[in-house]
Amino acid sequence: MSELRCDPIIGRWNIVDTHSPSGPNAFDVEDHTLGASKCPFCYGNEAMTPPEIHVVRPSGSAPNTSGWQLRVVSNKFPALKIEGDLNRRGSGVFDLCNGIGAHEVIVETPDHKKQLSDLSLEEFAAVIRAFKIRSLDLRGDRRLKYTLIFKNFGLSAGASLEHTHSQLIALPIVPKRVQEELRGALRYFEFRERCAYCDMLSQEVQDDERIVCENRSFVAFCPFMSGFPFEIWILPKEHRGDFAQITPEAIADFARLLKETLLRLRVALSNPSYNFIIHTAPIETREREEYHWHMELIPKLTKVAGFEWGTGFYINPTPPELAAKYLREAALPT
Amino acid sequence: MSELRCDPIIGRWNIVDTHSPSGPNAFDVEDHTLGASKCPFCYGNEAMTPPEIHVVRPSGSAPNTSGWQLRVVSNKFPALKIEGDLNRRGSGVFDLCNGIGAHEVIVETPDHKKQLSDLSLEEFAAVIRAFKIRSLDLRGDRRLKYTLIFKNFGLSAGASLEHTHSQLIALPIVPKRVQEELRGALRYFEFRERCAYCDMLSQEVQDDERIVCENRSFVAFCPFMSGFPFEIWILPKEHRGDFAQITPEAIADFARLLKETLLRLRVALSNPSYNFIIHTAPIETREREEYHWHMELIPKLTKVAGFEWGTGFYINPTPPELAAKYLREAALPT
Repeated sequence: MSELRCDPIIGRWNIVDTHSPSGPNAFDVEDHTLGASKCPFCYGNEAMTPPEIHVVRPSGSAPNTSGWQLRVVSNKFPALKIEGDLNRRGSGVFDLCNGIGAHEVIVETPDHKKQLSDLSLEEFAAVIRAFKIRSLDLRGDRRLKYTLIFKNFGLSAGASLEHTHSQLIALPIVPKRVQEELRGALRYFEFRERCAYCDMLSQEVQDDERIVCENRSFVAFCPFMSGFPFEIWILPKEHRGDFAQITPEAIADFARLLKETLLRLRVALSNPSYNFIIHTAPIETREREEYHWHMELIPKLTKVAGFEWGTGFYINPTPPELAAKYLREAALPT
Repeated sequence: MSELRCDPIIGRWNIVDTHSPSGPNAFDVEDHTLGASKCPFCYGNEAMTPPEIHVVRPSGSAPNTSGWQLRVVSNKFPALKIEGDLNRRGSGVFDLCNGIGAHEVIVETPDHKKQLSDLSLEEFAAVIRAFKIRSLDLRGDRRLKYTLIFKNFGLSAGASLEHTHSQLIALPIVPKRVQEELRGALRYFEFRERCAYCDMLSQEVQDDERIVCENRSFVAFCPFMSGFPFEIWILPKEHRGDFAQITPEAIADFARLLKETLLRLRVALSNPSYNFIIHTAPIETREREEYHWHMELIPKLTKVAGFEWGTGFYINPTPPELAAKYLREAALPT
């Protein structure tokens, strides 16, 4: 089992792989390109993954055989595991606990050659729906405090398999970054009695310089203080803290807007690697009225270096006004 | 001039290059390898950089000509500039100010082929001394609140020129990451009436599992909660918040220990790219008795991906106990 170990000064928990540790030779650059015959996410190779937890497949077809449209399975090499006790404890000045949690993979399509943005709107909506279903299901486990849904696309953005997939990690601790957002949003809410994200969204719409695209329920924009070139946030227009409460209509609208945003990025930047992350409220019974779920999308164009590690600030060579203009003007395939 | 723009929720300031913005084609992978004839940090090319601010050269030799041993110059493409007013202001929900600050380059040797760890102990000490001298000199400017000294070595760690150099950026704002450390160290100090870093150091010495090397004044170790494989911290044994107060004896000891640490890293990991950062107290008149300056050294072995962006946590595949063992056992050149 891995360990979660806490920095006693800044309070950051890291996951340390004490179970199958990597030595110095584990870090050579590897080519993870696999042919479809060896790919665990392709038809016929279902036995190469743990059994499916959630699936979209024709009724009557047998689980863990081909024919499916979307599959969710446990990660074969999980950062955290569901079995065991948390056993939070001290070790002198340090704090640690066992690496308890869930780590799942959402295989978005059986087609080895497709990207997420190639999916039909219906297939895309099934991916968003899978995010919701898995989020809700994991709430039964009282040890889990937060569900993170994210995607790494492309080798340089950290994808270890090229077959398109997203990931879900459920954590026994509310992450540092989420706590910062909650604290900041609460401070703003107490001062203004309004949601900081709603206010930011109105201002972005009013300024009308950094909007990428929008529809009935969502707006995609390059935020004013973007730390990364071509960084994009997608915010629901309706104020809601918990992603997993998303309605069927909003799922369809989110799929449409995210697909369009990904296509614009693909055209404007020649198919860049990227990460996206759904920022949502922690798992808890009370409503977080000060929080507003959203997606942050970061194309992998710059390197994190000494300045960023030392300050927590980022140097962004592309003002969001310019990035949004390029994204808006990208000629989409018809 | 660039702009500093603040995230209204998490309070992170980013530097946005509104002066010479990069479009979508600026991010193709470039090979920054230059021959010595075109390298601005080689002898004979002194006119390719701004004039020297600090230099180690034989007395009587003319400034900005060859013959020097070490040179500090302003960065030709600075993230921040010293001229102008800060003009901190609001723009609706957002905060911004002008990109005021200093951005200097420490050219550590005229030899294009050498790495920092190839320098003699005397040359190495001159680099540390230059860090101190420049830090002290910039304190005259009351607009500046923090001096960050760092090094990016290797293309994948963000170095844009291969000729060995370090950088100094002085900022008009105390960075988010430093504020977190100050807050955490103060909380610990108020609770225990002791320095968190001193306590961490005693425990690392007592546990004796993660020490890499040490001498009279400094200890290098892989901290218990390392977020990165082969992450190393170097702490002065003497409690002191401000790096720039380092004594001449400590400069010599720091040079010796950092050189040894870099050599161990080079042997154990086949000359990896890395970043190092000096973490020090902000520029202010009062003493920060709760803080303890130190260096953090991160070899570039893993990628920052969706999980890390979403949580602020890191997944470390190499437990620090194992990393320290490999580093201790590295066979150094004699």
